[in-house]
Amino acid sequence: MELKRITHAENVRLSDSGRAVRILDQSRLPNETVYLELSQAEDLYEAIASLRVRGAPAIGIFAGYALYVLALQSQETQYGPFLEACRRNRDYLNSSRPTAVNLRHMLDRVLAVAESMPCADVPSIQAAMGQAARAIHQEDIAMCTAISEYGLSLVKAGDGILTHCNAGPLATSRYGTGLGPLFLAKERGIPLHAWCDETRPLLQGARLTAYELQQAGIDCTLICDNMASLVMKEGKINACFVGCDRVARNGDTANKIGTSGVAILAKHYGIPFYVLGPSSTIDFTCPDGDHIPIELRDGGELKEKFFSAPVALPQVKCYNPAFDVTDHSLITAIVTEKGICYPPFEQSFAQVFGRPEKEAT
Amino acid sequence: MELKRITHAENVRLSDSGRAVRILDQSRLPNETVYLELSQAEDLYEAIASLRVRGAPAIGIFAGYALYVLALQSQETQYGPFLEACRRNRDYLNSSRPTAVNLRHMLDRVLAVAESMPCADVPSIQAAMGQAARAIHQEDIAMCTAISEYGLSLVKAGDGILTHCNAGPLATSRYGTGLGPLFLAKERGIPLHAWCDETRPLLQGARLTAYELQQAGIDCTLICDNMASLVMKEGKINACFVGCDRVARNGDTANKIGTSGVAILAKHYGIPFYVLGPSSTIDFTCPDGDHIPIELRDGGELKEKFFSAPVALPQVKCYNPAFDVTDHSLITAIVTEKGICYPPFEQSFAQVFGRPEKEAT
Repeated sequence: MELKRITHAENVRLSDSGRAVRILDQSRLPNETVYLELSQAEDLYEAIASLRVRGAPAIGIFAGYALYVLALQSQETQYGPFLEACRRNRDYLNSSRPTAVNLRHMLDRVLAVAESMPCADVPSIQAAMGQAARAIHQEDIAMCTAISEYGLSLVKAGDGILTHCNAGPLATSRYGTGLGPLFLAKERGIPLHAWCDETRPLLQGARLTAYELQQAGIDCTLICDNMASLVMKEGKINACFVGCDRVARNGDTANKIGTSGVAILAKHYGIPFYVLGPSSTIDFTCPDGDHIPIELRDGGELKEKFFSAPVALPQVKCYNPAFDVTDHSLITAIVTEKGICYPPFEQSFAQVFGRPEKEAT
Repeated sequence: MELKRITHAENVRLSDSGRAVRILDQSRLPNETVYLELSQAEDLYEAIASLRVRGAPAIGIFAGYALYVLALQSQETQYGPFLEACRRNRDYLNSSRPTAVNLRHMLDRVLAVAESMPCADVPSIQAAMGQAARAIHQEDIAMCTAISEYGLSLVKAGDGILTHCNAGPLATSRYGTGLGPLFLAKERGIPLHAWCDETRPLLQGARLTAYELQQAGIDCTLICDNMASLVMKEGKINACFVGCDRVARNGDTANKIGTSGVAILAKHYGIPFYVLGPSSTIDFTCPDGDHIPIELRDGGELKEKFFSAPVALPQVKCYNPAFDVTDHSLITAIVTEKGICYPPFEQSFAQVFGRPEKEAT
């Protein structure tokens, strides 16, 4: 039962005391397995900013619990000041990573509980916020299961799957999104082979994806990002599965830096390219990828982090965008928990998620 | 005169004694500047295999001197046994890296001197081999200068140039091939901006290209390989310049792993993709890229080399091809010391290098 070790790891949950968020510190994998219990605002912020917790769904679950844990600590007994404190916490946590839309979504969802209870006492509001945070977690498990089922329907036994970054159980709650079909296939005895882009500069593919696939007994091979072209040319890849951090209304998809390159290569070699993610990742207020801000991170991640000695001179300039946007024209399908959306995405999103204006009539 | 520090560094030359090959150990850059004097066959082999000397032209210069230095040590006084020893040394050194055609070319060229002097005494043959090795070096300087001139004619002041791996002075004798136009432009006061792919797994872009550009005062920015797509999309790149390890008769080009991916991205974004290299890199006996062997290297280069701690579990499988082949259809032009070759390459190669069958009439 190697799989259980992973799917039951619960990378993010409330601590046993119920007053802190407990996480597996992903920044220390694969060499150290360290759990942290966080309850201070600065520590919660830092855990997101430093990628101790990462992956849009896991960040969403974490953010829900974090806002709840901070609300529990509030000394306010009056509704107005209590709500103001919750809003400040929402804004502070939301500023930890600018690209992930799920972070904002889940913070807003837990905050909305407080906003909707102006006549209740603070303890009741706190309890309701805790219920909302737990519901986010449970829904994520159901969401990952559904995405994994839809994704698995797109491949066949023996296929080679190229992955980029990490969108597995570590990034979510169970199964994962981009990696979900691989874990589900393993449970069902369907052989698939994963090719894992190492995903520079932070090496999530090596440190996290290859780690959790290997631990689950799923056949996988690690490559450098720049080997994807050759591996595709050699016929080893039947499909690309990636996660997503934000999807615009037209299907343009922000994900880990390098994703757009994988998509361009896949198109060149005639290989289907699938984005897998929860419907909460689709930002219907965002018309296209040009409206998605790209987080720029420190150049030390290129030159120093992970290395035993600097790999470039200190004075060498670095450019370190954490994400890129894959144009919708490069995406074969976007797989959500509610169904598989094919281009044109504005139409298929409307079909799968329904048109609010029609529901209103 | 920062430039002089680089172009006069003489990464490869005969030692002052004339009985060893002196190299700048590129495997220790950028943090340590260590020169080695090598005269034993095993050390000379190891210097190539371990990338202490690297870059097709530099390997060619090194190989010529190496074969000469080993010939000097021969105890044989008879022509037959002396030639046999030289041939064994040629085969041994040639086996150090299977993909670089220049290695074989230059070994054969120095060996041919011995093969052509059956009536001479061994000291005379040794002296002639030394002359041949020195000629290879001098020709490389002239070759790099010519390639740099042709390459510079393809860009304009202010252009952004994407580079992959290292094809600068460190990889050659002076100016370099792929980086040659940047060094020549610097000499002439023409501003260009280099964007350097770090080039995993061995990070030649970070350790060598960014190093030598920075040292020469050339404006450059380091990126991870998987950032090239975004940088191109953002309009920062006007041309791609790469070196080459072997070019087939139809223009298919073997170069550092990841080069084919850069070419596919460049085509997608409508950016010209130029291969720069000496005509000796064109293997007219090789019909196309399918006939170019790809060296597979150890997975430890992905998981352990350069890192302060392993970045993947020990049992994770790795695939580590050192080169890939860029299809000729993706190449805008191949720039040699004899001229710029545009597609179709079989025709332009014949025009630039002459048709042997016509020369014979």
